[in-house]
Amino acid sequence: MKRFNLDVETDGANHIVNLSPLIHAHVRDLRGNGVLHVFVIGSTAAITTMEYEVGLVKHDLAEVLERIAPEDARYLHEATWNDDNGHSHVRAALIGPSLSVPYQDGHLLTGEYQQVVLMEFDTRPRRRTVVCTVLASE
Amino acid sequence: MKRFNLDVETDGANHIVNLSPLIHAHVRDLRGNGVLHVFVIGSTAAITTMEYEVGLVKHDLAEVLERIAPEDARYLHEATWNDDNGHSHVRAALIGPSLSVPYQDGHLLTGEYQQVVLMEFDTRPRRRTVVCTVLASE
Amino acid sequence: MKRFNLDVETDGANHIVNLSPLIHAHVRDLRGNGVLHVFVIGSTAAITTMEYEVGLVKHDLAEVLERIAPEDARYLHEATWNDDNGHSHVRAALIGPSLSVPYQDGHLLTGEYQQVVLMEFDTRPRRRTVVCTVLASE
Repeated sequence: MKRFNLDVETDGANHIVNLSPLIHAHVRDLRGNGVLHVFVIGSTAAITTMEYEVGLVKHDLAEVLERIAPEDARYLHEATWNDDNGHSHVRAALIGPSLSVPYQDGHLLTGEYQQVVLMEFDTRPRRRTVVCTVLASE
Repeated sequence: MKRFNLDVETDGANHIVNLSPLIHAHVRDLRGNGVLHVFVIGSTAAITTMEYEVGLVKHDLAEVLERIAPEDARYLHEATWNDDNGHSHVRAALIGPSLSVPYQDGHLLTGEYQQVVLMEFDTRPRRRTVVCTVLASE
Repeated sequence: MKRFNLDVETDGANHIVNLSPLIHAHVRDLRGNGVLHVFVIGSTAAITTMEYEVGLVKHDLAEVLERIAPEDARYLHEATWNDDNGHSHVRAALIGPSLSVPYQDGHLLTGEYQQVVLMEFDTRPRRRTVVCTVLASE
């Protein structure tokens, strides 16, 4: 296996999706050592790791991101394109679309409370494609 | 091809450079699947992806970064080194110097409105070296 | 060599550890071109690059992170788990647990003033495992 895609439906507006169970279904067949590269296509979503528990997922990340890039601030992106997601673009660019995680013999080497997540920043539900690439260490 | 460098001249002060056309000129010759690793040398610039349009590039990112790490805040880095770019160092460390992007048969698997960019945070024009490494998936 | 781990003791609370000397002890034996992938296990620490000098390390990063995700803000994570490290989780998720750095013939291709660092965001001292994976470019 070289590559697999994850198709993820999001609810928009700071929806955080736990990708780890989806990834594990593929990684469990990998032997040896390497790195799994995870990349979300699009400029209004991001990939990172976090503890996937309700407080962080439903409140804390959103509140900090609202402090950094408020939804109702003035974005020239919105004035130019008559759009409403300037904050979505900025948040996604700051966190980034990509992450690599080491694996060994069928397991991601993440912490017990460390999941790979997709953060949706767009203002409406989206269908996201996450491209995962296996890089074996020689 | 294992590696290529991009040499980029920046204007300083939040200049955002679209690297995707420079990268595509190299990636179009790659067959199969893999990941392209992109890394900027230096501690006052960063790499991420974003929609490369005027509102985000000329205004929105800069305004949010000014909220996070204001240019005129007090930085001990500046007091220590009699320098003016404490905010540049902090912004670069938060976003990070590196990104990996999947490719397939000559194309980066980025979205239609998702470009790979270099963000210059130093206060003066700089000549930047971006090291790109091809990692084929076996 | 495919992989090595770094075991790092931190002091908690924004302790920034310079990993570059620890990494160089391993990388000096690598020939050819490739990328070194660096990943910290856990959801309250992060990896990035920065100039490792006292002003940035002891003051400037901490001050900006306190502006973004203040220690004494209200985090639902803390109310849920009777914990004190909501800000630690948020900071770690924003910066991210991972970084890849190109190498060539025994040297990381980082800038003279650009070190790979671990940022500890938890509120107490921790023992961290940093998983490093060698990805040779073919």
